[in-house]
Amino acid sequence: MSDTRLALLESGFGLGGYIPRAIAADAPPPSIPRTDIDRYWMAQAILEAMEGIGRTSPNPSVGAVIVKGEIEVSRGATEVYGSLHAERVALNAAALLGADLKDATCYATLEPCGGRGGKQPPCADGLVTAGLGRVVIGADDPHKKAAGLGLNTLTAAGITIERALSGEAKAWHFPFLAAQHKGGPVLIGKWAQTLDGHLADDHNNSQWISGPRSRAYTHWLRQKYDAIMVGMNTLLLDSPRLTARDSAPPHARQPHKIIFDPSARLATASSKVLEALFDSTSASGPIIYWCTKDKSIKLPLDLSSYADRLIHVPYSDEDVPLLFKHLDAKHRERFGCELQSVMVEGGAQLLTLLLRADLFDACHVFVRAGILGGLRNRVGRLERGDNPVRDLMERNDFHLLATQQIDDDVLIECVSRKYDFWKRIAEKKE
Amino acid sequence: MSDTRLALLESGFGLGGYIPRAIAADAPPPSIPRTDIDRYWMAQAILEAMEGIGRTSPNPSVGAVIVKGEIEVSRGATEVYGSLHAERVALNAAALLGADLKDATCYATLEPCGGRGGKQPPCADGLVTAGLGRVVIGADDPHKKAAGLGLNTLTAAGITIERALSGEAKAWHFPFLAAQHKGGPVLIGKWAQTLDGHLADDHNNSQWISGPRSRAYTHWLRQKYDAIMVGMNTLLLDSPRLTARDSAPPHARQPHKIIFDPSARLATASSKVLEALFDSTSASGPIIYWCTKDKSIKLPLDLSSYADRLIHVPYSDEDVPLLFKHLDAKHRERFGCELQSVMVEGGAQLLTLLLRADLFDACHVFVRAGILGGLRNRVGRLERGDNPVRDLMERNDFHLLATQQIDDDVLIECVSRKYDFWKRIAEKKE
Repeated sequence: MSDTRLALLESGFGLGGYIPRAIAADAPPPSIPRTDIDRYWMAQAILEAMEGIGRTSPNPSVGAVIVKGEIEVSRGATEVYGSLHAERVALNAAALLGADLKDATCYATLEPCGGRGGKQPPCADGLVTAGLGRVVIGADDPHKKAAGLGLNTLTAAGITIERALSGEAKAWHFPFLAAQHKGGPVLIGKWAQTLDGHLADDHNNSQWISGPRSRAYTHWLRQKYDAIMVGMNTLLLDSPRLTARDSAPPHARQPHKIIFDPSARLATASSKVLEALFDSTSASGPIIYWCTKDKSIKLPLDLSSYADRLIHVPYSDEDVPLLFKHLDAKHRERFGCELQSVMVEGGAQLLTLLLRADLFDACHVFVRAGILGGLRNRVGRLERGDNPVRDLMERNDFHLLATQQIDDDVLIECVSRKYDFWKRIAEKKE
Repeated sequence: MSDTRLALLESGFGLGGYIPRAIAADAPPPSIPRTDIDRYWMAQAILEAMEGIGRTSPNPSVGAVIVKGEIEVSRGATEVYGSLHAERVALNAAALLGADLKDATCYATLEPCGGRGGKQPPCADGLVTAGLGRVVIGADDPHKKAAGLGLNTLTAAGITIERALSGEAKAWHFPFLAAQHKGGPVLIGKWAQTLDGHLADDHNNSQWISGPRSRAYTHWLRQKYDAIMVGMNTLLLDSPRLTARDSAPPHARQPHKIIFDPSARLATASSKVLEALFDSTSASGPIIYWCTKDKSIKLPLDLSSYADRLIHVPYSDEDVPLLFKHLDAKHRERFGCELQSVMVEGGAQLLTLLLRADLFDACHVFVRAGILGGLRNRVGRLERGDNPVRDLMERNDFHLLATQQIDDDVLIECVSRKYDFWKRIAEKKE
C-alpha cells in the first residue's frame, strides 16, 4: 500500500492487461471515473492495445486513443508486424473523419517511435503534422534504437508530454520491455497451486486446482506470449493442446509449443498425445520445438504431413540457459526474428528446475485457498536430484505486481528482482 | 468475480474489518463514494465497531451510526462485556445532543438485540422509542436466543429494515457468528509463507517472510481473538511474546496464550523464553494455558509470582478436538464465559496437525511472492509421522473471502467449507 510500484497498478490490471476483459469480452469496464481524465483515457488505450494481442510480436502491441475536448476522436492498436503502429492507425481514422486535431491529446501506452530506418515512418512525426497539443504516454521505450527519439521530436514541436498509468502500461508491455534488458527469450512461469504448493495430487491429477475463469485468463496469456513450454510428464499425462481457445478473442494466433524432453520420451508417445500436440498446427500454424537429445521420431501416418513443423532443439548437457539460446537461434532461422517470450506452464519439476536456475522474469501464479498435504507434484522441490538445505536469504524473491481474485482463486503476478528490471524502469523517468 | 459471496466484500475489508485501519490508525478511509449512501454509512459502522475490538468478548463488537438527512448524528461501539451495546451508545450520544431522531436511520453491523433477559434492555426497544424510521443492518444474528427478535420488534413498530455490506459485516463478526454453529472455540489459522508453503527456512529462520505492515495486521488480530496458540518449537526458537503491540490501537486487552507442548518441554525452557512468554501477564493479565501431559513446572524465582496465571490443560492422548474442549472448560471455570476464538500462529507442524484434522474455521495467510525450495518448516507435511498419499478431492478447501496486497505480501482470508457456514448464512436472508 505504501509501495509506489504497486500504487500504480489499478485494481484489475496486471501483466495480461485489464484482466476481466482478458477473461470475457463483455467484462464491465475498469472503474475509473471519467473525471480522472488522464487515467481514464490511458485505461482506454490499454484496452485498445489488448485488441492487438498476438499479432504484433516481436513488436509491442500498443494502443492509442485521440481525445479532443474530452470527446474521443479515434483509437487504434498496432497492426501485424511490419505494418502500421497504433498512433498511425488512430491518426488515419481521425483523418478519415475529417477531424481537426489541433490541441487534441493522444494517449499512447508506449512512447511513440521517432527513429528513422524502421519499417514505418515515425509516429512522432505524424503526431506533429496532425497538430496535436499534448501526448500522454504509459511506458517509456527502452529500446536502444528508439529511447527518447520520439519524445525529442514531440518536445521540439512544442507538444506537451505527460505520463499516466505507467505501472499498468509497463505491465502490459512487460515481454517487450524485459527483452531489451536480456539476451534471449523472456521467461514467464505460470502455474495453479494449492496454498502448500501442489500443482497436482499424488495421482498426477491437476484437474482442476483453479477455476474456469482462471483458465480463461491462461488462454488469453497464450495469445500474448510467443511460445508455451511444458515438461514431458505434463504432456504424457494430460495430452494438452496448449492452444488459446477459452479466453476472450481476438485469437489472432496460436503460440508455438516447446516440449522439454531430456529423455526423448516423445518418440514413444501415444497417438492421443501426439494428436493433441499437433492440434492447431497447420501448414501456416505454430511450430513444435522438441528439446531433447539428438533423436529422430517417426510420426503416425495421419500426422506425417506435419513433420516439418516439428523442430529438434539440442538439449543433452543439462545447460538450461544454453537451451534457450538454441531455441532463439532456431526461431530466428525459421522466422527471421527473435523468440521474445516463452510461458512455461509446468509441471512442477520443470518449473522448479527453472526456478532453481533463477530463470524466470515474471510469474502468473493462481493460488487456491486449500491445503493438499500430498507427497508429489509440489513446486520448489525436485523429486529426483539434490534438494539442498536452504536459507531464507537464498529464496527466489519476486516483486509483487498485482493480485486479483478470480472466483475462488487468487492470482499473484510478480516480476523477478534479479535483474531489478521493474524498479530500474520505474526509477528512470518517474 | 461472478461469485456473490465475494462481490459483497469491498476492497480493503476482511476478517479483521477494514484492513488498512487495522494496520495504521491514520489509514485513508475506504473509497466508497458518499452517494452510495447505505454502503458508505455501513462502512462507517464497521469502522466504529473496530473501536471496540478486544473489550467485548464473548459478545460481538458491534458498531452503530445514526444518520439523519445524510448528516451523521452520533455513533457508538459496544462497551465492555455486560455494559452498553453499540446502538444504546449511539442513542445516548444523540440524546445528549438533544437530536430529534424522527425518521432517522440507524446503521448497525449486527441485527439489534430484541430479547429480554440479557444484561441490557433490548436495543430494538430503544430504537423504536427514539422514533427512528429505518434500520440498516449488516449481519443477521444467528444466536438462538436472539435471531429475529429485534427485527420483529422493529417491524411491528413500522420501522423499515434493510441490509448493506452483509459480507463485510459477517467477516468482521466471524468469530461470534461461527461460534453459534460450533461447540467449542472457533479456530483460526494464521501464518506467513512463501509460495511453496515454507513458514521458515531449514535453519528455522522465519524472520521475516512477511513485511512489517503484515505483522502489524497480525497484532491487530491478536486483539480480536481470545487466545493465541503456538507449538513448542516456535516458542523455544523464537521466544515470542504473543502480544498485540505493533498494530493500530485501541489495545484494550492482550490475548491469552496457549502453548501446545505434547512432550512437556516448557519445563526445560530458558529464562529468555519464559520471560517473553510471561510478558504482559500481570495480576489482571492474560492466562497461559499449557497443554501437555500431567506435569509440573518450577518457574524461575522472578516469575514465581505469576504461577497462578499458568494453567495446565491435559493433553496426552493425541485427541486434538478433546484438547479444545478441555481448554474451553478451563476458561469457563476461570472466567465464567466461553473461550470463543483461538488464533493458531504456528509453527508448520502444529498448523499441519490442525489442518489434517480439518479443525480450522478460517485462516489468515500471508503469501510472499517467492520460492524457497527447502526441506523443512513447510505447511501441509508432517516432519514426523505419516504423510498419506493424497487425492485432490481430499484437500482442505476453503471459501475464499478476501485478498489484499500489503506491500510485498498477499493476504488471503478464507473460511472453512466443512461447515458450509458462510454459505448458509449468505443464503439465509439474502
